[in-house]
Amino acid sequence: MCAYRSIEWRDGVVRMLDQRLLPQQVVYRDYTDSRGVAQAIRDMVIRGAPAIGAAAAYGLALAAYHDPQGDIGALKGALEDAAAILRQARPTAVNLFYAIDRVMEVVHSSTSSSPVELSTRVLHLAQAIAYEDVRTNRNIGMNALPLVPQDAIFIHHCNTGALATVDYGTAVGIIRCAHENGRKVFVYVDETRPRLQGARLTAWELRELGIPHAVIVDGASGAIMKTRHVDLVTVGCDRVAANGDTANKIGTYNLALVARAHNVPFYVAAPTTTIDLSIPTGEQIPIEERDGREIAVIGSESILPEGTEIVNLAFDVTPAGYITAIITEEGIAYPPYTESLPVIVAKAAERRRYEIV
Amino acid sequence: MCAYRSIEWRDGVVRMLDQRLLPQQVVYRDYTDSRGVAQAIRDMVIRGAPAIGAAAAYGLALAAYHDPQGDIGALKGALEDAAAILRQARPTAVNLFYAIDRVMEVVHSSTSSSPVELSTRVLHLAQAIAYEDVRTNRNIGMNALPLVPQDAIFIHHCNTGALATVDYGTAVGIIRCAHENGRKVFVYVDETRPRLQGARLTAWELRELGIPHAVIVDGASGAIMKTRHVDLVTVGCDRVAANGDTANKIGTYNLALVARAHNVPFYVAAPTTTIDLSIPTGEQIPIEERDGREIAVIGSESILPEGTEIVNLAFDVTPAGYITAIITEEGIAYPPYTESLPVIVAKAAERRRYEIV
Repeated sequence: MCAYRSIEWRDGVVRMLDQRLLPQQVVYRDYTDSRGVAQAIRDMVIRGAPAIGAAAAYGLALAAYHDPQGDIGALKGALEDAAAILRQARPTAVNLFYAIDRVMEVVHSSTSSSPVELSTRVLHLAQAIAYEDVRTNRNIGMNALPLVPQDAIFIHHCNTGALATVDYGTAVGIIRCAHENGRKVFVYVDETRPRLQGARLTAWELRELGIPHAVIVDGASGAIMKTRHVDLVTVGCDRVAANGDTANKIGTYNLALVARAHNVPFYVAAPTTTIDLSIPTGEQIPIEERDGREIAVIGSESILPEGTEIVNLAFDVTPAGYITAIITEEGIAYPPYTESLPVIVAKAAERRRYEIV
Repeated sequence: MCAYRSIEWRDGVVRMLDQRLLPQQVVYRDYTDSRGVAQAIRDMVIRGAPAIGAAAAYGLALAAYHDPQGDIGALKGALEDAAAILRQARPTAVNLFYAIDRVMEVVHSSTSSSPVELSTRVLHLAQAIAYEDVRTNRNIGMNALPLVPQDAIFIHHCNTGALATVDYGTAVGIIRCAHENGRKVFVYVDETRPRLQGARLTAWELRELGIPHAVIVDGASGAIMKTRHVDLVTVGCDRVAANGDTANKIGTYNLALVARAHNVPFYVAAPTTTIDLSIPTGEQIPIEERDGREIAVIGSESILPEGTEIVNLAFDVTPAGYITAIITEEGIAYPPYTESLPVIVAKAAERRRYEIV
């Protein structure tokens, strides 16, 4: 695995790598309560749907760990409060809600009268969610392997690497797994405005991994496909609706349209935890609109005339019709997704029934 | 017209507004020789195809104006040298070559033995090229008016305003002319990475003009078209091939693909001087690849790990099939462009025959 971890539990402390400072500085920050974790998610110290899920679970673990533990009712109340705060942190990635729901289900169904027992169980579940993420990502990479040609030129959008997850990465995990399995890989990295996760994070991770790559601006994908060769596009996702519509970082939909015009396969890497069958189509996915300063200010420099109106949609929705396949840890879902996704999700639920705390 | 001018002749001095410093600082720079003008074009003190054309003509005027004027042969030699240097400044915009060719044609065909007479003629022609640009842009705006609905929501890429021209603008000129003629206009401004001409320049100009607008990242155009309403896309161009293929700022092609997917009309504003009938298709247009630092460094901040490979294509080519119409000062060209463009170019040549020095 990598020398860096996006998030880690250390005896009552959650340690996160502050991704806002990469690649210039490697700074770790320690959190000891769920409120701090929620703020870190909101401020994007940590980002990426799977990493956010793990962070939320660890946030609940902190609430349990530092509870005075005098009374089971008080502990459950503290966990409810923490869950409510964490749910507010970001709206689009379903993993956040999924991780919180999983922990709170255990809290609600627990009949134990021992605060120590319950709080231990919450911590174990948070750890399990984090470890499971790493295994999930490795399986996504292996499942994708048959889709990756021997010489494979990728375009990749945003960051879906070890930094966006607990480790290994989802869409970057596919690239990494191909590289580890002898494919000759080259990656065009979309810089991914406004927060530049491609330039700042993916380029950094690919360098650490020794995978050849070049950074391009987001508007260049069409020119690259037309004047050079591209074999496939891989992206991650923040939420997949029941019909396969996929919310992901702004710019993903444009890239999907460009890929379609060039007949380049467009693959979504999706842990089953990002699939939300309760939402019929992408139109029902809430899209976070973030502060315009993310566009207006780069580093310390303002690029805009003062007072300029800005529309900063953090995510877009790519309609299922533009997605060649959705690659999960349980296998590959092909269209029609209304049929394939429920099978995949059921497999994941079945597996989880036998494995988890 | 505007309170600012991209370029102006002032008694033997060419004054340019340094566009690299906008919108934070309004700094004018004075040039007294053609070498300095060539460097300013290369460094993008001035940019935008029509403005570059005028700058090149003024560069030749400087060479003539400051020549010792002892001998007609020496003056012609000095102009040849200046033309050679100016031709090297940037490769993609045809206006540069067109303006130089026009001036040098006069130089070559002149039978005068008086250096003063020739140098006066060169200056007058440079002025005429600059003034003609302003009239051209106003006519493009008027010609486009029937295509603009009463309530018109635009997406605009890069800067094609007064700053990209001598005054008024081409694609921004269309927006401006619609605004001046009572249309209710709103503009989504692509920030236009890597050099951010949309954010830095177009937003600044639209504010000066009192035209409502909002800045978006380049990757957001698909989401904006899908979740909000957009009536039309307007872009400028650096060169139009005989078949209508159009070279313009990187990201234009992606925007054209996005517009097509949403059935939004995609219009190119093109002074006839940017139409190059000698080039059959876009594949023969040379595409400038610029220094990767344009992507890696924003203001004083580096956004990339050191040594990261970067591909920085400055332009892309939008195939004619994605262009709804090409709007020129002589009228609107519709597909098939191989038929409509020669008619437009012939009209322009005919008009010029009767008008120019």
